[in-house]
This record gives sequence, C-alpha cells and structure tokens, in this order.
Amino acid sequence: MDDVRFFDRAGPFALEEIAGWIGATATAGTDRQQPIEDVAPLTLAGPSQISFFDNPKYQRDLAATGAGACLVAKRNLDRVPAGTAALVVSEPARAFNEVVRRFYPDATRPGAIWDEAPAGSGVHPSAHLEDGVFVEPGAIVGMEAHIGRGTRIQAGAVVGRRVRIGRDCTIGPGVSVLHALLGDRVIVHPGVRIGQDGFGYAMGPSGHAKIPQIGRVIIQNDVEIGANTTIDRGALRDTTIGEGTKIDNMVQIGHNVVVGRHCVIVSQVAIAGSATLGDFVAIGGQAGIMNHVTIGDYAQVATLSAVREDLPPKGRYGGVPARPAREWLKETAALQKVAQEYMAARKRDKGTQEDGRERESE
Amino acid sequence: MDDVRFFDRAGPFALEEIAGWIGATATAGTDRQQPIEDVAPLTLAGPSQISFFDNPKYQRDLAATGAGACLVAKRNLDRVPAGTAALVVSEPARAFNEVVRRFYPDATRPGAIWDEAPAGSGVHPSAHLEDGVFVEPGAIVGMEAHIGRGTRIQAGAVVGRRVRIGRDCTIGPGVSVLHALLGDRVIVHPGVRIGQDGFGYAMGPSGHAKIPQIGRVIIQNDVEIGANTTIDRGALRDTTIGEGTKIDNMVQIGHNVVVGRHCVIVSQVAIAGSATLGDFVAIGGQAGIMNHVTIGDYAQVATLSAVREDLPPKGRYGGVPARPAREWLKETAALQKVAQEYMAARKRDKGTQEDGRERESE
Amino acid sequence: MDDVRFFDRAGPFALEEIAGWIGATATAGTDRQQPIEDVAPLTLAGPSQISFFDNPKYQRDLAATGAGACLVAKRNLDRVPAGTAALVVSEPARAFNEVVRRFYPDATRPGAIWDEAPAGSGVHPSAHLEDGVFVEPGAIVGMEAHIGRGTRIQAGAVVGRRVRIGRDCTIGPGVSVLHALLGDRVIVHPGVRIGQDGFGYAMGPSGHAKIPQIGRVIIQNDVEIGANTTIDRGALRDTTIGEGTKIDNMVQIGHNVVVGRHCVIVSQVAIAGSATLGDFVAIGGQAGIMNHVTIGDYAQVATLSAVREDLPPKGRYGGVPARPAREWLKETAALQKVAQEYMAARKRDKGTQEDGRERESE
Repeated sequence: MDDVRFFDRAGPFALEEIAGWIGATATAGTDRQQPIEDVAPLTLAGPSQISFFDNPKYQRDLAATGAGACLVAKRNLDRVPAGTAALVVSEPARAFNEVVRRFYPDATRPGAIWDEAPAGSGVHPSAHLEDGVFVEPGAIVGMEAHIGRGTRIQAGAVVGRRVRIGRDCTIGPGVSVLHALLGDRVIVHPGVRIGQDGFGYAMGPSGHAKIPQIGRVIIQNDVEIGANTTIDRGALRDTTIGEGTKIDNMVQIGHNVVVGRHCVIVSQVAIAGSATLGDFVAIGGQAGIMNHVTIGDYAQVATLSAVREDLPPKGRYGGVPARPAREWLKETAALQKVAQEYMAARKRDKGTQEDGRERESE
Repeated sequence: MDDVRFFDRAGPFALEEIAGWIGATATAGTDRQQPIEDVAPLTLAGPSQISFFDNPKYQRDLAATGAGACLVAKRNLDRVPAGTAALVVSEPARAFNEVVRRFYPDATRPGAIWDEAPAGSGVHPSAHLEDGVFVEPGAIVGMEAHIGRGTRIQAGAVVGRRVRIGRDCTIGPGVSVLHALLGDRVIVHPGVRIGQDGFGYAMGPSGHAKIPQIGRVIIQNDVEIGANTTIDRGALRDTTIGEGTKIDNMVQIGHNVVVGRHCVIVSQVAIAGSATLGDFVAIGGQAGIMNHVTIGDYAQVATLSAVREDLPPKGRYGGVPARPAREWLKETAALQKVAQEYMAARKRDKGTQEDGRERESE
Repeated sequence: MDDVRFFDRAGPFALEEIAGWIGATATAGTDRQQPIEDVAPLTLAGPSQISFFDNPKYQRDLAATGAGACLVAKRNLDRVPAGTAALVVSEPARAFNEVVRRFYPDATRPGAIWDEAPAGSGVHPSAHLEDGVFVEPGAIVGMEAHIGRGTRIQAGAVVGRRVRIGRDCTIGPGVSVLHALLGDRVIVHPGVRIGQDGFGYAMGPSGHAKIPQIGRVIIQNDVEIGANTTIDRGALRDTTIGEGTKIDNMVQIGHNVVVGRHCVIVSQVAIAGSATLGDFVAIGGQAGIMNHVTIGDYAQVATLSAVREDLPPKGRYGGVPARPAREWLKETAALQKVAQEYMAARKRDKGTQEDGRERESE
C-alpha cells in the first residue's frame, strides 16, 4: 500500500528550472538538465529527488543522503556529498517550501472528497451561494447563509443560519459554523466549532442562570484554524480572530476574545473570555491565558505557561504565573539548586547522626 | 456586513417597562417613556441602548458612555454621566441578564439551522419521536431511540441505538450521543461526544486487552455541555452528570465519573475514571482530577491544579498537587523569595570572589 | 428508564460453566449449578450476579456485597462473605474481564446505529468496498477510497479521497479520515480527526506562509483511538501509530510523529511534531511531549509532565521538565520542606521583632 499518493505531483522538472524558481546557483560541473521528479527529506531521498539541509543537527543525514540534489546555504556547501548536486540559496528551508509548492500545487489547501457538487439537497432554499461554490454531499447550508465563490463546504460540515463565508475558503468535514462572519481564504480544518454559546452564567445558590450570548464570531482573511478547535461567540460584543492568524488543533477561544493579526497559537492552548492578544503574538502549546488579560504585540509565551496578568509588547514570557522568560528560567534553576543543596545537607546530617549512633553502639 | 444579526430582537420598550421587569427605580427627572431599542456594553452603547455598570474596573467606561440608560447599584449612582438615565437595582449584572433575555427571547437556546423537519429520511423506522420533535437534515436518529417533544436534533447530529432524550433539549450540529439517557432541557453544544467506550484495558506484556464497557451515561435535567467535550460511558456502572451542572468546551470526563448537581467545570479540564464530584463543585480551566478521587460539595479548585487526593467539602484548593489555596499561595510566594535570596547570595559570593581575584592581580 | 440496556446479554450460565472459561476453582460446598445471570460491581451485585475482588481498597465492599458469586485470589478467600460463592483464580480482574466478554459478546466493539447498509447514496462511485462493508446513513465515502470487509463506517463519518481502511474496523460517528492508511481491527471513536494538515508555516515579518503537508497517516492493526483525538498527517514523511497502541480522548498528535507498538496515551496529552515514541511507552494524562524528542521503549511518563529532552528506555519520568521520577519526587518534597522552613523562620523573626517592640513599649 506504500505507493498511495494523496496529492497529484507535477514535474519532472530540470534542475535548472528549479534553480530559476528560487534564485539558486548550481555549483560548477552540475548537470543543469538533470531531471528531478520529487521532493523528499534527506534520509529518504533518492537520485531523482531533491532535498534541503539547514539544521546542523542533521549533518549526518546530509553526509549519508542519496538525494539527487540538495538546497544548501553557501557555508555548508562542502558538506554536500559527491553524488548530490548542490543548489546554493540563502534560506534553504524557505526555498524548499517553494519547491514543494511547485511539485504539489494542490497541497496548500484541503482537497476535495467528492468531485462534483450534489443536487444541492443540503442547501436551504433561502441560502445564497455565489457561482463556483462546492457543497459536498452530507454538508448542510442553513437558512439565509451566504457563501462566496471558490469556497468548498466539505462532507458533513454545517453552516448555520445567516452565516457569511467569503471567497476561496475551505470548511472541512464535520465543521460547524454558527453566528459567524468569515473573510476570504480562510481554512477551517475538520471538527472545528465556531460560534456556539460562550460559557456565561449568573451563578446562584440554587443553580446557574444562562446569560444570553448575542455576539458573533468574526474571522478575518487568511486565518487557518486547526482540527477540533472551539471558538465561542461573544456575549455582548464579538469574538474576533485577526487577519493571517494561524491556530493549531484543539485550541479553546472563549467569548469576547480578540486575537490580533498574524498570531500563532499552538495546540491545546486555552484563551479565557475577554482576553486580548495584539498582533504577531505567539503562544506555546498547552498554555492558559486568563480572562480579561491583555498581551502586547510580538510577545511570546512559552508552552505550559499560565498568563494571569497583562504582558507588555515584545519579549518572551514563561512559567506559572508567566513572567519574563529570563527571570523565570533563573528562578527555576535556583530552586533546583536549593532543592539539591537541601537534600545534600539532610544526607550529611543523617550521616553524622548515624555515625553518632554507631559510635554509641560500639 | 456589520449589520448581520443572528437573533431576532424584541422591542423597543419604554424605560418604565424595563424598570418593571427588574424592579428598578428610575431616578427623579428621568423620562419614563424613553424608548430603548437594544442592549449593549458601556463602550459601544448609544442613546437608544441600555447598559449596566457593576465592576469598578470599568469606571472610565461608565464616565465616557453614550448609553441612553444604565443599570447601577445605588452606591454608584453619582458616577452615571448626565446624558444617561440611571435605573437603580441591587444587582445590576443579574438584572441586565434579565433585560437581555427580554430583548432576545430566542438567545438562551441554540437556534434552528433549518426551519422545518425534513421528510425524516434520517430517522430509523424503529425510533420513537414524540410530537414536536425537530430533526434537521443530515441528522441521524438510530434504532429504537426515543426523543421527547420540543427537542431539536440539529444538522449532522447522531443519536445512537436505544438512546433516550427528554423534552425541550437541543442536540447541536455534529454531536454524537450513544448509550445514554438524557433528561429535559439539556443543551449539548456542537461536536460533543457522549457515551463512547471508556478507556479500559487489561495491560499485558504482549499487548492490551480491551475491557468491555457496558455502563451508560446519565445526564440529568438542565445540564449544559460545551463544544467538543467528551463523556465516556461507564464500565460496569454509569457515568452521571447531575442536574443543572454546566460544562465548558473540551472537557474530558472518564468512565464511571459521578458529577453532582449544579457544578461548574471550565474548559479543558480532565476528570479521570471513577472520580466523584459533590454538588456545586467548581473546577477551574485545564485542571486535572485523578481517578478514584472524591471532591466534596462546594469545593473550588483553581485553574491548572492537579487533584490527586480526596478534597473535603467547601474551601478553595490549588496547586500541583492540589492543597488548601492559602497554603498553596503562601508556599509559592515563599519559594519565590527563597529563589531570589539564593540568586542574590550567589551574586554576592561571585562579587567577593571577583574582588579577591582583582586584588590578587593588582 | 433505568432498565434501558444498550448491549444484549447472553446467559444465564451455571457457575460451573463460568469456572470452566477462566480455569477457576469453586470452593467446597458450592452449588456448581447455581445460575448466574449477569456481571456487576461488588456494591451493586445481587444473588444472581457475579462480581470480583482484587483491590484491597474495596475490602468493605466485599464484606457487604450481595453478589451470588465472586472471583477472588486464594489469599483473599476468607474475606468472601457467607452468602457469596467464591471462585478462586490467580488474577481476578483479568478473569472477570473474560467473564464480561462472555456475557456481553457485542460490547468489545462499537455497536450499530442503523441495522442495514443504505442504498449507498453516500458512497462515491469510484470508491471500492469489499463485501460486508456497512456504510450507515449520513456517512460519506469519498473518491477512490478502499474499505475492507467487516468494516463499519458509522453515521456521519467521512472517509476522504484515496483513503484505505482495512478489515473489521469501526469508524465512529462524525469521524473524518483523510490522507491515511488504516490496518485491520482499528477502532476510531466518535469525532476523531485523522490526516488533516500538520501545523507548519514559514514565519515571516509580514505573515506566515503555509508549508505544504504532503505526508500521510499510517495506523497499524489493532489501534484504538479515543473520541475527538486529532492526528495530523506528515509534512514530508508519514505520521505513524504502531500496532496495538491505545489512545484516549482529545489527544493531539502532530505531524511526522512516530508512536511505537502497544503504547498507552492518556487523555489530553499533546505530542508535538516529529517526536518519536518507542514500543510500550505509557504517557499520563495532560502531559506534553516537545517536538523532535525521542522516548525509549517501555518508558513511563507521569501525568502533567513536560518532556523536553530525550528519555532513555524503561524507567519512570515526571515533572516539568520531565526527569527520573525518583529525583523529581525527592526534589518536590525537598522544596516543600524548604518553603515550610522558610515560612517558619519568618514567623519566628516576626515573633522576635514583635517581642522586641512589645518590650520597648513596656
């Protein structure tokens, strides 16, 4: 079964053509017409495949590679083995990314599960679909929804009443989108939940009364949202995800949260209600952001941290509660030393006591 | 697109009528016939809208508000700006909640995605539906299922064999309910998974044998369950969620767990198998409860805590492992001081050594 | 409603027959023809039911049980109350598991929601289904998919283009399987997401460019995957889950991850991209494994730990960051003592100062 391919590959391409895409220089003596059929990592690449080297950690893989060609920075040129043609570029990882896109032009956006729009039994008569919208079987588009051209609603996805989705979006299998407005080129991966009620109750001694959640979710252009992530709609205002922000799997975003533009939020993060993130904020995996907290532009929060108070722009933060990363790391190291010294001292005390006892019993 | 409204608004209502709903007193000189068209937060409210002030943190927002009317406690009356009519109530937040309900009567329960029950192709002939059950297109109701009147099964939801769901429930898009009995007025948000196998294996040196999970899930009246939460069915007994309990998004509830009445469980909490929570227990986000642990009535557990041993009723607990919150906070503060003193001492030592070296090199 | 049964029960069986299944010995004086109708836990079992005793923690439950029969180890034989027939086996829990399987033969694999395959409107004409595949209504099988005999695709599940699923698998309600190859006897619980894009971007000052993810997900035989878990496909290589591995609910598995055979991964664990787990590795709930880390065969990681560096085979590890469990527990205990001593010292200092002040004011 190993030959199953989920993406259609373009090519083969001559080495020369590939060099042209990325502004690379072939080293003297290279066969510029050498045909390249595929991309591969160093450890798996064969003579008709191209790879790249960037991270010094993988020096041995480069030395042992069977790749026909390899993208490298100039400083690593002499590490490329004899049988492998070297293409010199300033940023090999970034250039390789472009090469992969050329070989797999359909791989940057989720592919179709079904090749043609069905009769449309899943689309409510009052919904408005521009030309070129694909609604796969099993998908449901609710009352008065509005969907822009080039957008694909995949099998089993549900688009709620009055929801608006822009152009060239992909709404993955089993997704639900309710009370939301989405921009263009938004990718929503399988099982994402957008726009359900925020978690708001008036607590009381005999039970908790539900607070109506009448806000919406606004997702701006070029946002990507990972599988099974949940984004609640606002209570009185909107929950907003800014342009170009990328969200990983199983992230929780509470009601009224405002996430800025071009943020990166890693898996299993929880952002509690009414928190605000600036632009280009990065949050490491499994971190928690408390409600009503504000995080400044470009701030970076380490994995597993708990942000309990506002963080200023820029800088790195970590720990429980989150503080400047340098301070946090120093404190952690100091406490480890304190623990070790304490344990060593106890051992000495015990030794002395035992010595004493031994002498007594002599 | 900013005018898209997902809920139908009632009104306008005269200020007098609103005051009557909540037992509020209008201050002298107020136009009791002033028409109010909508609710809004202080920062967004205009002259035809009503807002509320409760949290002193938002004093500035009150001072600058353009709201036509505002609910306030008597002690804050003189903070309301001149152009805003004040309605005095003892609990402004709670009263405002009631006002929102009157303006948006359809916002306390998830709305329809499709306006009429389809031909019923998704309902198995052996299932029993009382009158007034709505099964949206794409939803599947399995063999011998039983659903009470007023309940809506939303697009793409799956109700398993022999499952019983009470009256006036909402089963959201893409939910699955298996091996479960649900009471009345239960709200299950999108993507929730109820009643799949608990995680039980007889571990062995050559692999792990699956332990049959033959219990059920019992969900009592007025429970609300957040998006993508998972509740496994019991192994030999039942997994039970007590009346009025509110569960946030992406909470994991293992097999045999018993959650009492009116508990509040915040996002990404994990409750391991056979744990027991009393009534009115509150668990903060991302906390973990170990298996077979019991937590007493009214106990509160802080975010990110790990409960490894039984906790008595009442009181606040926090930390890893969870202990009385006061103790935990004191210990945390003490350790921070210890770390700082350690670092300061090391700095002094280093300074002294360097001084010594300098002298030596003189 | 308490009599609702989701599984069909076999039996009754004579005590003698049950003893034969598991190689048990009935004590002298037992009625070997005594009919047993069901299995139950000690606290709920009645005279026609069989239970087991293994964990000393439940001694009182044994003393008070009303069970007609009970599996026990020889050493606990005299603890069984008079009215209960004892069957002596070396491993009562394991033997009981076998008894449950005999009473509930259909409980080891998710049951049907609908009793017959529908007309097949959800199966794309280009898909290939072996004989004896069941596709429930609302399920979608995409283009060129291939499904082996005995496999059931449950209501609302989505199988993507070119996906291959082996024999006797269960794909639960609302699951999506994309870009993946599954072996035989794989159980995928509701809402699982397999094969969507990994989280990979080329970060840049003006935004983040998506890195194409052209790998696949390989799931070997006898794997079981818990509800709402997410497994991303590889970037250039494959994400792989080894034979017999059991994964709990809401686990995140990033791109390129390789999980060995017979691992056990508990709820809400996150395994970041390109991490490698050996065989028989066990990871406790809510733990995080950083990217590119390798964990050796048979290693065990405690709940809530953060694995930041490679861990050798065997041994137990815990803490943030994870280190040998013994070391971690000692350090944690030492720090608690340090904190207590610090607090006690401060109290004494304060006391002394106050004493001083009092004396001064005398």
